[in-house]
Amino acid sequence: MINQQLLRPESIIVVGASNNIHKPGGAILRNLLNGHYAGQLYAVNPKETEVQGVKAYPTVQDVPTADLAALAIPAAACPDAVETLAEKGVKAFIILSAGFGEETHEGALLEDRIRQAVDAHDAALIGPNCIGLLNTWHHSVFSQPIPPLHPQGVDLISSSGATAVFILESAVSKGLQFNSVWSVGNAAQIGVEDVLAYMDEHFDPEQDSHIKLLYIESIADPDRLLLHASSLIRKGCRIAAIKAGSSESGSRAASSHTGAIASSDSAVEALFRKAGIVRCFSREELTTVGCVFTLPELRGRNFAIVTHAGGPGVMLTDALSKGGLNVPKLEGPLADELKAQLYPGAAVGNPIDILATGTPEHLRLCLEYCEERFDNIDAMMAIFGTPGLVQMFEMYNVLHERMQTCRKPIFPILPSVNTAGAEVADFLAKGHVNFADEVTLATALSRIVNAPRPAANEIELFGVDVPRIRRIIDSIQDDGYIPPYQVQALLRSAGIPVVEEFVSIKKDEILAFARRTGFPVVAKVVGPVHKSDVGGVVLNIKTEQHLRLEFDRMMQIPGATAVMVQPMLKGTELFIGAKYEEKFGHVVLCGLGGIFVEVLKDVSSGLAPLGYEEAYSMIRSLRAYKIIQGTRGQRGVNEDKFAEIIVRLSTLLRFATEIKEMDINPLLATEKHVIAVDARIRIEKNRDSDEEN
Amino acid sequence: MINQQLLRPESIIVVGASNNIHKPGGAILRNLLNGHYAGQLYAVNPKETEVQGVKAYPTVQDVPTADLAALAIPAAACPDAVETLAEKGVKAFIILSAGFGEETHEGALLEDRIRQAVDAHDAALIGPNCIGLLNTWHHSVFSQPIPPLHPQGVDLISSSGATAVFILESAVSKGLQFNSVWSVGNAAQIGVEDVLAYMDEHFDPEQDSHIKLLYIESIADPDRLLLHASSLIRKGCRIAAIKAGSSESGSRAASSHTGAIASSDSAVEALFRKAGIVRCFSREELTTVGCVFTLPELRGRNFAIVTHAGGPGVMLTDALSKGGLNVPKLEGPLADELKAQLYPGAAVGNPIDILATGTPEHLRLCLEYCEERFDNIDAMMAIFGTPGLVQMFEMYNVLHERMQTCRKPIFPILPSVNTAGAEVADFLAKGHVNFADEVTLATALSRIVNAPRPAANEIELFGVDVPRIRRIIDSIQDDGYIPPYQVQALLRSAGIPVVEEFVSIKKDEILAFARRTGFPVVAKVVGPVHKSDVGGVVLNIKTEQHLRLEFDRMMQIPGATAVMVQPMLKGTELFIGAKYEEKFGHVVLCGLGGIFVEVLKDVSSGLAPLGYEEAYSMIRSLRAYKIIQGTRGQRGVNEDKFAEIIVRLSTLLRFATEIKEMDINPLLATEKHVIAVDARIRIEKNRDSDEEN
Repeated sequence: MINQQLLRPESIIVVGASNNIHKPGGAILRNLLNGHYAGQLYAVNPKETEVQGVKAYPTVQDVPTADLAALAIPAAACPDAVETLAEKGVKAFIILSAGFGEETHEGALLEDRIRQAVDAHDAALIGPNCIGLLNTWHHSVFSQPIPPLHPQGVDLISSSGATAVFILESAVSKGLQFNSVWSVGNAAQIGVEDVLAYMDEHFDPEQDSHIKLLYIESIADPDRLLLHASSLIRKGCRIAAIKAGSSESGSRAASSHTGAIASSDSAVEALFRKAGIVRCFSREELTTVGCVFTLPELRGRNFAIVTHAGGPGVMLTDALSKGGLNVPKLEGPLADELKAQLYPGAAVGNPIDILATGTPEHLRLCLEYCEERFDNIDAMMAIFGTPGLVQMFEMYNVLHERMQTCRKPIFPILPSVNTAGAEVADFLAKGHVNFADEVTLATALSRIVNAPRPAANEIELFGVDVPRIRRIIDSIQDDGYIPPYQVQALLRSAGIPVVEEFVSIKKDEILAFARRTGFPVVAKVVGPVHKSDVGGVVLNIKTEQHLRLEFDRMMQIPGATAVMVQPMLKGTELFIGAKYEEKFGHVVLCGLGGIFVEVLKDVSSGLAPLGYEEAYSMIRSLRAYKIIQGTRGQRGVNEDKFAEIIVRLSTLLRFATEIKEMDINPLLATEKHVIAVDARIRIEKNRDSDEEN
Repeated sequence: MINQQLLRPESIIVVGASNNIHKPGGAILRNLLNGHYAGQLYAVNPKETEVQGVKAYPTVQDVPTADLAALAIPAAACPDAVETLAEKGVKAFIILSAGFGEETHEGALLEDRIRQAVDAHDAALIGPNCIGLLNTWHHSVFSQPIPPLHPQGVDLISSSGATAVFILESAVSKGLQFNSVWSVGNAAQIGVEDVLAYMDEHFDPEQDSHIKLLYIESIADPDRLLLHASSLIRKGCRIAAIKAGSSESGSRAASSHTGAIASSDSAVEALFRKAGIVRCFSREELTTVGCVFTLPELRGRNFAIVTHAGGPGVMLTDALSKGGLNVPKLEGPLADELKAQLYPGAAVGNPIDILATGTPEHLRLCLEYCEERFDNIDAMMAIFGTPGLVQMFEMYNVLHERMQTCRKPIFPILPSVNTAGAEVADFLAKGHVNFADEVTLATALSRIVNAPRPAANEIELFGVDVPRIRRIIDSIQDDGYIPPYQVQALLRSAGIPVVEEFVSIKKDEILAFARRTGFPVVAKVVGPVHKSDVGGVVLNIKTEQHLRLEFDRMMQIPGATAVMVQPMLKGTELFIGAKYEEKFGHVVLCGLGGIFVEVLKDVSSGLAPLGYEEAYSMIRSLRAYKIIQGTRGQRGVNEDKFAEIIVRLSTLLRFATEIKEMDINPLLATEKHVIAVDARIRIEKNRDSDEEN
């Protein structure tokens, strides 16, 4: 597990060190040396006495002990080397070599041996099959580029070494600084979740970086990821992540309605929502979000755009509005006062255009007005490029100076990365980032602003009868869809309103029930599976006489054992479903019913257990949310009751993990009530849950 | 207007030429010289006899005549200079100077004088207030960067000089080559549409560039843009454009339903659809699309991804699927055969992962298999970066060689722009482009693939009674919403099915009508405006007896002049609306009715007149198209009839331009019929159409 010897080793052995920097063992040593590693370095190389100026020893037996060993030797040689070094007292290992579990069964066995040796000595292990670990203390990676480093820079944790390298390529051009880069490779001991856990458990708000970027290929331990990501965010960190593979499971077979809607990507979506992680889908997006994270936090949605070129300001305005952000009009005496200090023809209505001839002093003025005077501005975006006539050093210095002290974020958009290459480089060298494309920035911002805060992990027990839920579940013997009366009982135990229904073989009782609840009613035959096909469902029965006729007719249907009757309700159709996802637990989906779910795929997902805040966030992120609110000419539905049912259902699932799939479809909703009309629940108790996949 | 002296001047005068390259007059001369302009150069400078080695003359009177003059002198001095030079025989002008119509009224007057002088001498004028014109013949711009030039490169036409410069910045890093860059500035004589018109009218398929990128701030002449853009595309060109300002008009006041939905951006959307222009929203997107345009045209949607790094391949697969593109599984004997030739552990299922250790020969093999053997592959994407151990020259050479001969497009994704900077530069120098971010590429591709082909500009007259339409329109005296019987008559004249209805003050006639069409019927009072509020609308009247009662009751409503009765129809609600947009003509909108239009804003737009192909493309680009097709458990509606009504309506509008706003809402649709149930039409004949805005 992660220890100080891994993070800040006093001494490092490079096993397989080489003078050839085109080999991993040569490149990692070069990086350590170029990175001015301050501790003691040793090399292990059977043929040399010195490698790149570092004293070399022929074998791991000969080399003095050290805190950390980085291995760049064939996979087959790694277990022995690790065992020898661990016995010597080496407490941390980075194994760059490939050829382990990712390739063959034999490789997996080698990996096991290494893991056992490392664990037995309480040592840390990164890899195998990775580019290594890079931080401000030591550059134990064989790869390039080495990004600019800063203790307040980004912590990047990646499942894939190559992707980490390519993320760095994308980051370097933007000037993004890093505190550490973790490539966990096969994660034989330390995975993405473990790194995050360590950062959370040892978090020092004064010393530690507040920005984490993740690239994840598979989430091995969703609970752990959720716990530590949300905890870090609550401590003031900002986390963005790519989870690759969002489309792969579209073709998965599914036995129910919910199953077809809930891809495993819903589980990721739900997890990220609950944790408060900003989800990204490309390296470009991830690094742009990372750059935004380096700026002061946004306190609102109102932007001023300051520029000396019209076009990009207009495109940026378009993109911000599309993302739900505002570019409020600036007018009145204050705006006039500012305008009077700019060149004639300048515009201050927002975008503020100081004209191509505008001076650095004009830029300074505009930023000052936006910071101190205009109270409807939360952040400033400055677009300043050049056709090459003048140099931009002075202009960018104004940005630099204002960014030192300004409490509102200032976003530098410097498009002339070629023509003003020297000026942009100088600006970045002062520790700033650059957003070369204004629309890419606006898109990233809207992702950040629209990401929910991490959810409180509350479980709502009020009105949920857990012992009764357990009694019902425990009484069920067979796997599969459970009978309607048990579905009803489970929902009622969770305090979810269910339409009243009555099953009987006695006509008088059926009629009495209908009289009591009032007409119209719905009658259904009990017994046959495909009721509609045999004429076993009749809606909207308005009279006792009609019900009498239908009762007699239905009891004649082959297989009929009884008749069920329930009041015919009206309202807007809603939908709630849930699916148990291996390792994630229950993913709850909600939406408007019918075509909204089936055709428009307008569902949002949350990870049980769900609190009220999350339930509201799920409902409000539906595209069709306005229908729930009510629109011109149409009344809305009771959002509070909808949220309550989502919360109650998630609590039910929490205590009935045997439920693998379920849906309530429809829930009928009016302004007053939301009530379950039909529901299906599939239980699985007896099988190994692995068979699910 | 555009002439050879502008495009290929034998001689150029730089008026205001300077030794100071930080001034426009110095920078443009430097660019001409650096660009190895082969013609005769003259400078005009009152103080020098030679500027940057070019012979200088004190005034425009003194300088010899030339084909082209580029002016970089104060605005006030321009008209005289232009007049003098035009009289001398100069046939083309580029005016870089600002301070004209874009700033003041006086400036506009100067601009007018210039325009008059230029027109009087049949000369061409670019600007004023622009960066100039750059092509393979002469670099008459004052700006940087100068992109790599090639006769088959991109033609960029921009409303904004600064934006053109920033687009070039974004293009240069991708290796995109240009044939010409036009900055039209104030477009006193030549605007974006004129440049496009010239390119269309003089198009030489052998010699001319096939790629046009546009940045447009306002469309001065939509018809001209449509005509020439679609014509060029039909000739084999590919056009992408940014129209900035898509959000500004959201707040426009509108008196009708359609008015509220149709922003002026619908008109742009409709125009681009009709022309076949790929719409982009950022510089990054425009230049990425431009790069795609340089590759062979895609013939299908199936991609193979070849890489030596897993992560980016997965992200790319996700992004392609999201955009409706496929990464089909490769399997069977052919896949096994390929796999056997790669290193153990390589994957060929697609993405094809040749492993980090994979060789250039492996890449070549994979590309060859994808080109010649796998018949379910239309294009290849190659993701090859490096952590810096080996150089990539050989790998990129394989790409280069295959791209020379391969008929399927190969998309090079080279993420290591820093670490493999030299290799990427070498690859670009061979005339290739680079897509540094795989997801940005996938997004651009999906825009291109999903853009419609240019529409045939047919007008469907079959069954449209144009003389009758004109008689009805001509008979209308007052502006405003026209009465229902005229609405019905207009729709019927266009061959649009309208629900039968009958108005009478005689109960017997009403009853006879209802008996003939069949119950149930709808009855509405005629006279009162807000019928529902006074109880003047009754739906679903099922018996003669009931209709009798309602007739008597309605005739008692104050203001009642008659009763209208129509059959009560059932079906899926559709919506068609239209709005006259200044300069664009009629924008037609279609969608599913009700919440789909009002809440989900799920409408698509087309520009009248519309042919069948366009009508189908509008219908099929609805998010809710599956409802029209029919989904599990729900029948679809007659798409052919829906398309027919769109076409017929657009023809009606073509011959009734006095219709400023209208909607048919609802159109009721079943599998068999689509029929208009209610419609409103607003006519405006008597006002200046400018008042609309």
